[in-house]
Amino acid sequence: MKKYTIGIDYGTLSGRAVLVRVADGAVVAESSMAYPHGVMDETLPDGTPLPHKFALQHPQDYLDVLYTVLPAVIRQAGVSPQEIAGVGVDFTSCTLIPVKADGTPLCFLPEFALDKHAYVKLWKHHAAQEQADRIRELAEARGETWLARYGGKISSEWMFPKILEILEKAPHIYEAADRFIEAGDWLVWMLTGRETRSASVAGFKSFWGEDGCYLTNDFLTALDPRLDGILGTKIPHEVWQNGVNTGYVSPAVQAKTGLAPETAVAPCILDAHVAFPALGLREPGQMLMIVGTSGVDIVMSEKEVAVPGICGFVNHGILPGYFGYEAGQCCVGDGFDWFVKNCVPASYTEAAREAGMSIHAYLRDKASRLRIGESGLVALDWWNGNRSILNDSSLSGMILGLTLRTKPEEIYRALLESCAYGTRMIIENFEKHGIAVTELYAAGGIAIKDPLMMQIYSDVTGKPIRIAANTQAAAVGAAVFGASAAGLFPSLYEAAAVMGRVREDIYTPDPDAHAAYDKLYREYEILHDYFGRGANDVMKRLRNTLPL
Amino acid sequence: MKKYTIGIDYGTLSGRAVLVRVADGAVVAESSMAYPHGVMDETLPDGTPLPHKFALQHPQDYLDVLYTVLPAVIRQAGVSPQEIAGVGVDFTSCTLIPVKADGTPLCFLPEFALDKHAYVKLWKHHAAQEQADRIRELAEARGETWLARYGGKISSEWMFPKILEILEKAPHIYEAADRFIEAGDWLVWMLTGRETRSASVAGFKSFWGEDGCYLTNDFLTALDPRLDGILGTKIPHEVWQNGVNTGYVSPAVQAKTGLAPETAVAPCILDAHVAFPALGLREPGQMLMIVGTSGVDIVMSEKEVAVPGICGFVNHGILPGYFGYEAGQCCVGDGFDWFVKNCVPASYTEAAREAGMSIHAYLRDKASRLRIGESGLVALDWWNGNRSILNDSSLSGMILGLTLRTKPEEIYRALLESCAYGTRMIIENFEKHGIAVTELYAAGGIAIKDPLMMQIYSDVTGKPIRIAANTQAAAVGAAVFGASAAGLFPSLYEAAAVMGRVREDIYTPDPDAHAAYDKLYREYEILHDYFGRGANDVMKRLRNTLPL
Repeated sequence: MKKYTIGIDYGTLSGRAVLVRVADGAVVAESSMAYPHGVMDETLPDGTPLPHKFALQHPQDYLDVLYTVLPAVIRQAGVSPQEIAGVGVDFTSCTLIPVKADGTPLCFLPEFALDKHAYVKLWKHHAAQEQADRIRELAEARGETWLARYGGKISSEWMFPKILEILEKAPHIYEAADRFIEAGDWLVWMLTGRETRSASVAGFKSFWGEDGCYLTNDFLTALDPRLDGILGTKIPHEVWQNGVNTGYVSPAVQAKTGLAPETAVAPCILDAHVAFPALGLREPGQMLMIVGTSGVDIVMSEKEVAVPGICGFVNHGILPGYFGYEAGQCCVGDGFDWFVKNCVPASYTEAAREAGMSIHAYLRDKASRLRIGESGLVALDWWNGNRSILNDSSLSGMILGLTLRTKPEEIYRALLESCAYGTRMIIENFEKHGIAVTELYAAGGIAIKDPLMMQIYSDVTGKPIRIAANTQAAAVGAAVFGASAAGLFPSLYEAAAVMGRVREDIYTPDPDAHAAYDKLYREYEILHDYFGRGANDVMKRLRNTLPL
Repeated sequence: MKKYTIGIDYGTLSGRAVLVRVADGAVVAESSMAYPHGVMDETLPDGTPLPHKFALQHPQDYLDVLYTVLPAVIRQAGVSPQEIAGVGVDFTSCTLIPVKADGTPLCFLPEFALDKHAYVKLWKHHAAQEQADRIRELAEARGETWLARYGGKISSEWMFPKILEILEKAPHIYEAADRFIEAGDWLVWMLTGRETRSASVAGFKSFWGEDGCYLTNDFLTALDPRLDGILGTKIPHEVWQNGVNTGYVSPAVQAKTGLAPETAVAPCILDAHVAFPALGLREPGQMLMIVGTSGVDIVMSEKEVAVPGICGFVNHGILPGYFGYEAGQCCVGDGFDWFVKNCVPASYTEAAREAGMSIHAYLRDKASRLRIGESGLVALDWWNGNRSILNDSSLSGMILGLTLRTKPEEIYRALLESCAYGTRMIIENFEKHGIAVTELYAAGGIAIKDPLMMQIYSDVTGKPIRIAANTQAAAVGAAVFGASAAGLFPSLYEAAAVMGRVREDIYTPDPDAHAAYDKLYREYEILHDYFGRGANDVMKRLRNTLPL
């Protein structure tokens, strides 16, 4: 009897697996592993320096995680492999790997081991802004209607800008690559031995729709003649819908992990979307906010609306039957980590150690004692550019209101608040364009661990927020898709209803705090528009025109 | 034979004396002492918390300094007190003390010891902005012509806003004060036993001109009827010109310091202006930049021009015979200290210690390796408000261009650069209004000690910069005024020519660096005007309207 499924969640810094009981979604075992190479944004493994805006990974890390965490959860759970019905995978995206026809990443080959363009371009690799801009300009010039599906903007994080960057900066890598593939799709390939592409991933990150890629060969050759024929060769046409069965784990994987032969594998799901059913979400208007290193907001609607400034919308993109909308923030937890690494004085580090607290906990404790507006600070949360609703990776962070009395915890709180303002901006943008946002849910490391942050989100948005019951909502969500792939439920809706969970407690907005934040949010909005919408393009000039 | 004079320099955090040889301006002995109470901006001595924007001092500290450093330099120098011709004093300004008719500060009296308004209001006490605004509004409404002498703005740092703050917030202190006096004038009083007021100080900080106070009794009673009669009582009419003899050290001071009876005392000079002759400066167009905790820029001209946004101009205000112009920056070294205390991570503190460097030196070393524009950062140097050319203490600091790769040394350098941009703004403002700035000179702690900063100033302004030969240019300048008071030279010009000195080395602008900074300066200018000139008053709203 098949009573369990496994979800594997590939994040920015580590991968993890959960073994989940299908009957109630309970997590029976969990195992995680940090990527040995982490994010390579300063040097390649051999020490070769990387240009600004690069963020690479090593695909061997993904395999090392796979062959470590899968056996670990099976062993920990003490269940028979025959009881495990299916496996689901989610991955950060667009995380691009150039590979050979047999799936071997180019960077595994000795001739490319020192070539930065042969490595994985992580989602937050931002060196292809120029290419993204050119794709957008060409689409605008040709009046391509699909552009509106992506909010009228194209992110440098997506697949085609990254491919174009490789073509232009390293044509020999473009030539040598038999396939350009999302790391998540590659993982499913490594699990089953069969190359498959996920519709959810392709729809949101590669301009894929129900009837193929919106970028025609005609468009692509206009962009660069060397792209002629890329569709159907380096990027196959076929894509697989969420929750179907792509095949079973291969004998090689069985041998390395202990999984049984009849274990079904679901198509890869976007890491942001995968948690949706893990919270039991299945209705339009329920917005799931993933609050982690970065932020992703997803919501379903019956309506097909070209909302400006979102990441995109895809029919059946989250759960089948609805249009799935995604918006996002490039920098949430990453910004707090940056702050802690670069801006917290030794006296605070020392005091936190003496208090037996992490530095984040220590700062949060101090920040929680501040009255709203007391610091006089407002920040723009663009340390890693702005995804929604401006979709411009050349924007940058700003802090305003600094005085000689400003304390580190005040800046820290201003950073927390700026992320909440960014989320409110996204919600209001959806609502303004007719996509209802009726309920807020949150998952991700910060949502689970940081009551101050979640209360600020609730106070800033003026809406109650429910939190995922599972610490690893993404991995649990992947397990829900694994259950669907294995055919354990009539549909993903039933799977979500049975396996999804939120916590009992709920964050509710304080009316006074909300009123106070209304005023600060207006200031944020004015600055957001001034720096983000062309009145003063100083941020772009500083990052693109300069250095001098 | 009188061969020496003494200069006493009262700074923000400490006081110092130098004993100087008149023949060549050489410093023979030097002694300094930190104020035991420092700057009280969080609590009174008994722990009573202070409101935001308060910056108080304890007048006992000034006397303690006096009776420590004077005997120390005489002893150190090993000269006979009879060889000491005169003493000059300079002081931060406007640093206001409410005192009794015999000069006793109100805070020395038990009944006022717990009253914050009985203490010294240091120059950087910024709680009287509202009062400054009201004085300006009334002057505008009445079409007062003197307003233009002060750049059309009135600083909350000046004497009348501070007095009005006392009248409104603590009328009993206003009532109990027989005099409101600048701390520097009070010190001269304590030295000679005779109350005198300095024309230089009164001219720049109390609306004083050659024919009395520009604020008439009519104006003052319109401001508040309770101010009726303050001129001639709590503020005497008589003022003394720079470098005259106000009298000789009193028997009490002789007893406590060892000075001889016939030692002349000059009127107090503004701490920013006093260094002028210490560098040998005596020509119009020579701008002296004092680069220390804050920044002051002074220049003389034959022309009388109402330059907007400066601190003011006063006839004979620096040296007799010219109009003396002053502009300033509220926050220079203070901002770097804030950064080091609040924003430098433990890893840097540790590395600096291992390298045997101060944290400032360590950061400067790293910052000096950055290419211009490399960090992509631009800051507005308004951590303590803006003096020139906006004269608005409710403005605040801003950093823009932050990314996840931003390093502490990049922010540090951006802060240095922002101060240089602020200085260039001041220079261009003078030039635009017909006040020539032909040569740049610098004094103050940062000018002496920080080649990186001075090279940045030179590269940003595009002008060579000569540096004071004396570490303590202010104190040496005070000694020059002391020599003048004692009648050792026919005029202050001759005194400056004989006793003033600059270093041999000179900072010259690099043409490429200047061209690069031109671009960054344009960005600064746009942001300066946007946040400083009313397009977006967010800084004022955050500091004044909020907290909520």
